[in-house]
Amino acid sequence: MTDSECIKTLLDQLSIFFQKEGMDRFCIEGTDKAEAGDRVTQIDLQSQQMIISQIKEVFPDDAIFAEESGFDTPPSNPLSRCWIIDPLDGTYNFQRTLCPAYAVSIALTVNGEPIAAGVLLPELMMQFTAEKGKGAFCNGERLSVSKISDLGEAKVDVDFSELSRRKECMSVAKELMLQASQVRSTGSTVVALCSIALGLTELFIHPCPQPWDYAAGMLLVEEAGGTLSRFNCDPINLLDGQTELIASNGLIDWSPKI
Amino acid sequence: MTDSECIKTLLDQLSIFFQKEGMDRFCIEGTDKAEAGDRVTQIDLQSQQMIISQIKEVFPDDAIFAEESGFDTPPSNPLSRCWIIDPLDGTYNFQRTLCPAYAVSIALTVNGEPIAAGVLLPELMMQFTAEKGKGAFCNGERLSVSKISDLGEAKVDVDFSELSRRKECMSVAKELMLQASQVRSTGSTVVALCSIALGLTELFIHPCPQPWDYAAGMLLVEEAGGTLSRFNCDPINLLDGQTELIASNGLIDWSPKI
Repeated sequence: MTDSECIKTLLDQLSIFFQKEGMDRFCIEGTDKAEAGDRVTQIDLQSQQMIISQIKEVFPDDAIFAEESGFDTPPSNPLSRCWIIDPLDGTYNFQRTLCPAYAVSIALTVNGEPIAAGVLLPELMMQFTAEKGKGAFCNGERLSVSKISDLGEAKVDVDFSELSRRKECMSVAKELMLQASQVRSTGSTVVALCSIALGLTELFIHPCPQPWDYAAGMLLVEEAGGTLSRFNCDPINLLDGQTELIASNGLIDWSPKI
Repeated sequence: MTDSECIKTLLDQLSIFFQKEGMDRFCIEGTDKAEAGDRVTQIDLQSQQMIISQIKEVFPDDAIFAEESGFDTPPSNPLSRCWIIDPLDGTYNFQRTLCPAYAVSIALTVNGEPIAAGVLLPELMMQFTAEKGKGAFCNGERLSVSKISDLGEAKVDVDFSELSRRKECMSVAKELMLQASQVRSTGSTVVALCSIALGLTELFIHPCPQPWDYAAGMLLVEEAGGTLSRFNCDPINLLDGQTELIASNGLIDWSPKI
């Protein structure tokens, strides 16, 4: 089984799992973490278990770096093949947002760079896939970012993060928000990056995403013609310990004054 | 046919219409208005035509006040029965947002107050209905607002409006955003109000909605146990010419310092 075949098989299995388990999602009780907005659901843990058990079976020597417990430390050797996984990005949205802005995110990385990726938006029945150098796709259709280059015509997505980082988020986003045609806050980094790859959003900023929040979305955006960087315009390595993220269609020229 | 039967029939008809016409919505070209973010689609106009022709047939003496051309002036006699309609709230989302945060909104009002309401979220197959004094429902299930009373545990939705009003929006929302657990910006007033009625969101603010944006949602929120007011805490009359809106679960005690 190739890397991409493994991802595709997982997306199909997860699609069936979420069709069954994701119904009536507003009634599912989460377990509180330190922050009220960062809840874990049983579905999150089961999704991770499904993904990890398949990867361990197909690629027993690969490292795994994932959001939920037991796998949340970076690989000891960053040069090795490492799967970076978010079994349910947007857990808060899953429980408390009318529109289904949540996703499963699976990326294979080497040396901190994604080389294959898959994202599932279960309720919208959308499967996104990408391979380095071979393009990004949604349900089989090739994706490309939008051609909008003027911020005054652009739609931007801002992640306001949790309360402890709120003031910083708002300060960084302020100038952007004062110039963009449309401002949205979706609350899922994975969904925001898929939106850029689809050409629906021009720019997304988040001051503190974790690698599993954008490992797969990073490759989708790049392969659709977009770009990602840190706030200071540095290129991104998923294992560099930095957290700031700007993703764009590559035509909107904006970075925060820091 | 009673008022509520008329609304229910319309929601069923519109549901079939949007199933057929709303597919592949990202490819539909809009006609530009003055602001890039306020596009009208052919579907918007057809939806309005369907609604108005049925109302004119069933209730020929009622006034109609709706977003699209020909019906966008308030009724000459505010005491009369008046249908306030948004045939497609969230037209920008319809064309350019991955998650389907758009809705049809139909309200029957008397003296500027809603007495019956229906909202359709086509892709999510959700029909919301309410009658004054008889409760609010989603697909037949009775709705009630959330019990969260602490802003530090609340999810709030902020509408950042169009660019010409952005600075004002951000100024009004700033203190709220610095205190709420979670901040989202959905971009549809109707969807934001349905979320409060469902108990998924605690508070929503918008500095300049039009009456058709919140006529139906107002009754849904009230009948689910929530409250609505102007920024200065004045009660709302849909025809008073005021535009500021705060909607909440009635337990979160917040208003902007103005």
